[in-house]
Formats: sequence, structure tokens, C-alpha cells
Amino acid sequence: MAVFPTPRPLNRILLLSLVPVASWFIVRPLLEPVPQLPVLYTSLGFSIFAFLFTIYLVPSLGPTFINANLTGNDLLKTYSTLIPESMGLVCASVYIVTLTLFIPFAFSDALTTPVHSSATAEGITVSEFPHRQLAVYLSSLLSLLTATLLGFLDDVFDIRWRHKLPIPVIASIPLLMVYFAERGNTNVVVPLPLRSLFGTLVNLGPLYYLYMSLLSTFCTNSINILAGINGSEVSQALIIAVSVILNDLLYLPWPIGVRVPVHLLGNNTEIGFGGVWKAGMAFGSKELVERHLFSLYFMLPLVAVCAGFMYHNWYPARAFPGDTLCYMTGMAFAVVGIQAHFSKTLLLFFMPQIFNFILSCPQLFGLVPCPRHRVPRFDPATNLLHPSKAVFERPPSRLTTFILQIFSVLGLTVATPHPKTGLIHETTNLTILNFLLVRLGPMSEKRLVQVLMCVQVAGSVLAFFIRYGLAGLVYDGDRR
Amino acid sequence: MAVFPTPRPLNRILLLSLVPVASWFIVRPLLEPVPQLPVLYTSLGFSIFAFLFTIYLVPSLGPTFINANLTGNDLLKTYSTLIPESMGLVCASVYIVTLTLFIPFAFSDALTTPVHSSATAEGITVSEFPHRQLAVYLSSLLSLLTATLLGFLDDVFDIRWRHKLPIPVIASIPLLMVYFAERGNTNVVVPLPLRSLFGTLVNLGPLYYLYMSLLSTFCTNSINILAGINGSEVSQALIIAVSVILNDLLYLPWPIGVRVPVHLLGNNTEIGFGGVWKAGMAFGSKELVERHLFSLYFMLPLVAVCAGFMYHNWYPARAFPGDTLCYMTGMAFAVVGIQAHFSKTLLLFFMPQIFNFILSCPQLFGLVPCPRHRVPRFDPATNLLHPSKAVFERPPSRLTTFILQIFSVLGLTVATPHPKTGLIHETTNLTILNFLLVRLGPMSEKRLVQVLMCVQVAGSVLAFFIRYGLAGLVYDGDRR
Repeated sequence: MAVFPTPRPLNRILLLSLVPVASWFIVRPLLEPVPQLPVLYTSLGFSIFAFLFTIYLVPSLGPTFINANLTGNDLLKTYSTLIPESMGLVCASVYIVTLTLFIPFAFSDALTTPVHSSATAEGITVSEFPHRQLAVYLSSLLSLLTATLLGFLDDVFDIRWRHKLPIPVIASIPLLMVYFAERGNTNVVVPLPLRSLFGTLVNLGPLYYLYMSLLSTFCTNSINILAGINGSEVSQALIIAVSVILNDLLYLPWPIGVRVPVHLLGNNTEIGFGGVWKAGMAFGSKELVERHLFSLYFMLPLVAVCAGFMYHNWYPARAFPGDTLCYMTGMAFAVVGIQAHFSKTLLLFFMPQIFNFILSCPQLFGLVPCPRHRVPRFDPATNLLHPSKAVFERPPSRLTTFILQIFSVLGLTVATPHPKTGLIHETTNLTILNFLLVRLGPMSEKRLVQVLMCVQVAGSVLAFFIRYGLAGLVYDGDRR
Repeated sequence: MAVFPTPRPLNRILLLSLVPVASWFIVRPLLEPVPQLPVLYTSLGFSIFAFLFTIYLVPSLGPTFINANLTGNDLLKTYSTLIPESMGLVCASVYIVTLTLFIPFAFSDALTTPVHSSATAEGITVSEFPHRQLAVYLSSLLSLLTATLLGFLDDVFDIRWRHKLPIPVIASIPLLMVYFAERGNTNVVVPLPLRSLFGTLVNLGPLYYLYMSLLSTFCTNSINILAGINGSEVSQALIIAVSVILNDLLYLPWPIGVRVPVHLLGNNTEIGFGGVWKAGMAFGSKELVERHLFSLYFMLPLVAVCAGFMYHNWYPARAFPGDTLCYMTGMAFAVVGIQAHFSKTLLLFFMPQIFNFILSCPQLFGLVPCPRHRVPRFDPATNLLHPSKAVFERPPSRLTTFILQIFSVLGLTVATPHPKTGLIHETTNLTILNFLLVRLGPMSEKRLVQVLMCVQVAGSVLAFFIRYGLAGLVYDGDRR
């Protein structure tokens, strides 16, 4: 008989009090006067419901997952209760169902304007049916659903990581096919210093499609390899999604008029919020506003399901995300980056992941031995995590030694020489988690995930500074 | 160590000779003179490739499925080798990838007309981008993918049948949402005898959505409950798909001019094939031709993956389809029935399934005991199948006795009375398979599936007779 982990208790009153709030957000756009961004209200309402469904469904479906043998052992605990694995599937299902039910609200005036009306809220409800946007939305959903299916297959079939690296490319196919069928824009704006060589715009053609599929591969795998401790995958996704939302909000037409002193960040333009289609960074471009609304429609429910899941995945975890969550969230970021055309900004929010990826390269490409798990080592006596180590069974090559010496000098790893030969004998595993333990000393799992979250938040703050402070040095206002 | 079933040998030369044929179909539309229905060539080419991929992938992925514990025991065999289960997932994946890669060919002139050209082949390449059709196509793909995921989840989590009956409704949500967002047509043509009451057209409104979701539920589950012997699920899907294709072909603009003597079937119109947009049943309606092309694009690859899978699922089966195949194929039929607006004709092709469903009702609704498996009983001594029986542990109710007596009189079942009480003690299980064994006597499994296929073919022939012969009695030419 399987032993089920005790589910984390839920504050029923607090949660149920969210139901009227969510309902209000959904009903409000149907009432006069129609708010300026009615669909955004609907999206918020749906997201709150998605949060509630996730936070309730995860514990109640746990036993089903355990019975179906989808279980994992928590390596960093003293107990060995089986924890339901692949529960990111629940998040992904709630997420995709939410986005599907949202379709009539986002793309049809069938709900909002039952009688023939010409004067609608500016900018959101368009008079002509937005077929093109619907096709883009549906292709995004298809890619998300494919990613979910592939993530779950990965969990069930336990695909080896070398084989699964390119899997997200498959999930990006629907996106690319529709992009191609629609003859999507494959131009990129050239940075100012290179314009004398390439001109203002360069048509990348097929390379642009390569770039898009690489983006989805990167977003997916970079979250997947930064895994191993309770809450690490979902907290990354949560913080990146919140960062994307904050970025999107900058482009919305705020009804209140405020001026942000962007010059303090080094930019020489001043942002004047306020007025319809006079959004700060959108500078009156309806297209930019629509793109960032599209991004919001995908990111708000993502934050919701991640938050709901994180409650149960938080230390000590009662549910594991599995690869499914990484695939789904990674694909969601790739989708908004591609469809809303801010992939460079998006990548800035992935700085900790990029750092982790570069750090991991010697292990990923076989220069340094790569054990099956690179998670930190757990000391049951002190309940603290220590950096785990990779042991060289054969003497390292000169290139490996050189790289590890550089990493050691930079403080990224601790490489231990063999007492007799003097050659590097073992090194701490090359992940950001082990790096944090090397720099900050042993700490508990809960503290480590908190530190990781701080790093992610700091990365996002830096990203905003680079994007709105420094980008003016290499790009002008010409954003396409 | 798992014992793998010996894969069925593949005739490599014969199969590889299909590669140039498929390639020709894909390349042909790109060459001058462009054929009249260029995209149909592409679809055929893609379908042949889908067939090849399926027939090769199923045996090569078998061990992976067995290692992931996705296995089944063949109940009707003397051996007990584990057979890989849920391999309909391979069909579904090949099918969906095929349909995805097909998008640019079906919806974009980016491939066929690189230079600006106004004179294109009549009817297929339209000058304006067919956003609406693309959205419909994508929502169909979403429903298919959802059905695949749910089917696979059903296999992994082994959902009880009472719970899984409504699952296909979920898969139909994307279809319905887009239908609603596009304000799809919810009118139905009223049969002639009822027109004095309701008029020519009746707007069903929300009931139409109910009808559509019930259609997907029916298509999926009716194939699922007609299962149990090698090849039964996939052969049904194959024959229904071929029937749909034959029906679609009637509406295409054939370049050759022939006249079909439909009056022999009792219809008073004569079909004149020939000439662009002068298709037989389409009577020059471009919309009808486009609808049936849409249906062909979904049915051709379906036939291909079913044929490829059937080779391995044929008696004695080396691979089992699992629920995944039933969900995927059922949804594919629902999709074309709904999107191409011929759901009534479609249901005619499901006559054996409808018969099986009605026959099963007393067991499905608990009047007659329903054992976990209702497959025929296997006699290892003779290698023949006999009707399996449901035993009453309590005396049957009067209603049950009444129904079973009627079924017995009609020759649908054999109900055995108890020697002492005279009450019905046991009855053959109420499925079409047991019915066939009751009527035709014990036979081998291979023979039974062949008989079942004959029944399905006979059903389709009858369906064509009803549709094009008798339908004229209750419907005029007004088809919307």
C-alpha cells in the first residue's frame, strides 16, 4: 500500500473569498461603462480561477499520480515518502483549458456586444474579426499543448537528456508553420554600431526560423537544467513570468497620467504615461499595445498556475513538477517572446539561466564527468546542503584543466587536486545551485531556494536596467 | 528482463519504393502546369510519408513502450508475451505532425507562388489569405491534440469507463470555442415533412454546441467500446475514414466528364461530374468543394497512419492501440463532421457502432451485469472464440428480463434460464462481437475481425444508399 504525503492544508475561507473577486473581473467587462481594456479584466478573472483550480487539484490528484507509478523520491530529505511526480501536468492542463475558454472573450464581440454597436472601447474590440490574431493565438496554444504532451512523454518514457535536448524544437513547429504560412516578419533591427554595414533592417529569412526554434529550446531546457531542489523550477518560471508582466504593463495605455523619469536610468527619452494609445513605451503604437496585451493574456494565467503549484511544491515538497512543467513554462515564454516580438528582452530575464547554462557547458559537453544528478549533497545530520562533486575517473584533459582553473579563479567552482598526482581529481558540479553553496557556504534547502529566487529577482532588475537604460546606446526607438 | 514480441517483418524494398512516389506528389504542385487541386497532391504525398513513418516507428518504439510499463496481455492467445500497449500514440503523433507540417502548403501561397502572380489554379489558392480557414484548421488540430493527450492520460491513469465517457467533451472545447468566436452557423436544415412546423431552417443556438460535443463523445466512445480483438479498433477507423474519403470525392471538381446514374439509387437528380467547380454533388458550390477538401486533408493521413498501424495490430497483434487511438480517430471524425458540415452523413458510416452501442445499453446502464472485459471467450484447445457470458448474481429485474427476452427473440443474444428457478441466469455479453459469434457460430479471432470489417463495409454501402438514395425523400437540395 502506497504511503501518500500529507497534503499541505488549504485555507478554505481565504481561497473561497477569491471566487467573488474573480467573478467580478469576468462580469465587469459586460457591464456599462465598458472599461478601457475589458479583455484584460476577463484574463485576470480567469487567472484567479486558474489559481484556485491548481491549488485544489494538485493535492487531490496526487494519489492518482502515485497509483499510476508517477512518483519520485525526494533525494534531499531524511524521509523516503513517495512524492507524486509530473504534477506540472495539472498546471499545464489548467493553463491550457483556461487559455482555451478565454478564446471567445479575447477574439469575439459575440459576448460583449450582442446588439450591433459601432462605438466600442478603443483599441481592444476591433470592428473586423481578428482572424489573424486568432490564428496566432491558436498556433501558440498548439505549441503549448505539444510541449505539455512531450514533457509528459519525457516523464513517462524517461528520455535521456542528450536525446531530449532537441525535443522543444518539435513543440515549436506549429508556431513556426503558422508564422511561415502568414508570411511573418523575419526582419530584425540592426544595432546602431552595425548599421553602416547592414543597414537599419536585416531580413534573416530562414535563419529567423532557426532563431525561433532555438529560443524555445533554450527557454525549455534552461529551466529544466536549473532543477533539483524543492520549488526551484516553478519559482524561476514564476519570477520570469512576473517580470514579463511588469514589462508588458509599461506598454499599456494607462488612464492616469504620470511621467517616469527614465533619464535617471540613462535614457534620454522621458516616458509619459496616460491617455488611450498613449502608452509609455508604446508611444501611441496600437500594434505594440496589442502585442503586449497578447503577452499578458498568456502570462497572467501562467503566474496563477505557477503560484498555485508552488504552494504544494514549496519546501518540503508535497508534489514534484516533472519535466512537464519545464516544457510548458519554457514554451509559454518562447511563445510570448516570438509572437509579441520581444525575444531579446525576454532573454534578459533568463540571465541566471544563461549563467547556469554557460557554467554547465563543460559537463553538458562531456569535458567534465556528469553524474545522473547534479543536485547539492544533503547532510542528514545537519539538514544542510553542501556542494556536490563530480569525480574524475580518468585524468582531465588539458582543456578541462584550463577551464576548471579559470572557473576556480572566478570563484565558480572548487576543484580539488589529487594529493599524489596534483591533477584535478574532483570538482564541485557546475550548476548555479552548487555555485551558490560554494560562495555562501552550506545552507538548508529552503534557504537555498530563497537565495535562488533573490538571484532571479536581481537578474530581472538588472534586465530592466539594461533594457531601458543601456539599450538606448545600441538601439534607437525603431522597434519592429 | 522483458520479452519483446517479434516484430512483423517489413518488405523494405516495397516500402522504400514508396518514397519517390510520395516525393513526386509533394513536388508536383510546385511544377508548371500547376494541377487543378495542387494541395490535394501534397496531402497525398504527406500521407504516404505518414504511412511509412508509422509502419517503421511502431515496431521500433515497441521496446520503449514495454520498458515504460505500457504493456498489455493478449487475452485471446495461448502465449503470454507482453505486447506494447497505447501505441496509438505513435499513430497520433505521426498524424498530428503530418497535419502541422502541412499548414504552409494548405494555407499559404508562400511556397507555390514565390513571385507575385494573379492567375493561380482556380479555387484552391485564393488571392486573400484564408485566415478564417486557418483558424478552423488550427482549432481542429488543437482538438485532435487534446484528444491524443487525454487518450494517453486515460491509458496511463487507467480511468474507469464511467468517468471517461465525458472526456471527449473536453477535447471538443477548442473546436467549440473557435466555432463560437467565429460566430459559426448554428442553423440546421429541417426535413421536408417538418417544414410546415419549423420552416426551412431552424437556429439551434446553444443546442448546436451540445450536439457538436455529443458528436465527438459518440465518435470516440463508440469506437472505444467496439474493442477487444486484434485489429478491431483500427479497422473500424480505417473503413470509416475510407468511406468519408469516398463521400468527399463525390464533391470534387473532376476534370473528366462522366455522368453517374444516381436515379438508379432512387434519386431524381443526375450527377454530372466534370469541369472545374462543377463537381457532381457540389453543383458548382465553391464552399462545398472547400469543405470536402478540408475533410480530405484530415482523412487521407488518417487512413495512412491507420493502415500503417494495422499492419502491426493485425492478428496475431504485435502492438495494441490503447485508448489513444480511439480518442484520436474518434476526434478526427468529429472534426470533419463538424467543420465540413456533414455530421448526419458521418453518423451513417457509424451504423455498426450505433448498433453496438444500442445493444450494449443494458450493460452500460447497469441493467445487466457488466464484467470488466466483454471480449469473446477464447478456447485454447480449438483456437476458436465463443460468445462470452455475463452471469446474474441476483435475479434480474422485470425490465431486464423483458429486454433480454426481446433481444433473444431478435437473435441478438442467448439468455440461459436457471434450471431451477427458470429466471434468466446468464446471457451472452451484449456486444456486436458476441452477437456475430451467436449468429455465425464460433470462429477464430482472425476470422471474427474479418467478419467485423465486412459488416463495417456493408454498413458504409448502406449508408451511401441512404444518403444519396433515400435522403431525397426528406431533404431537398438545400444543404447548408
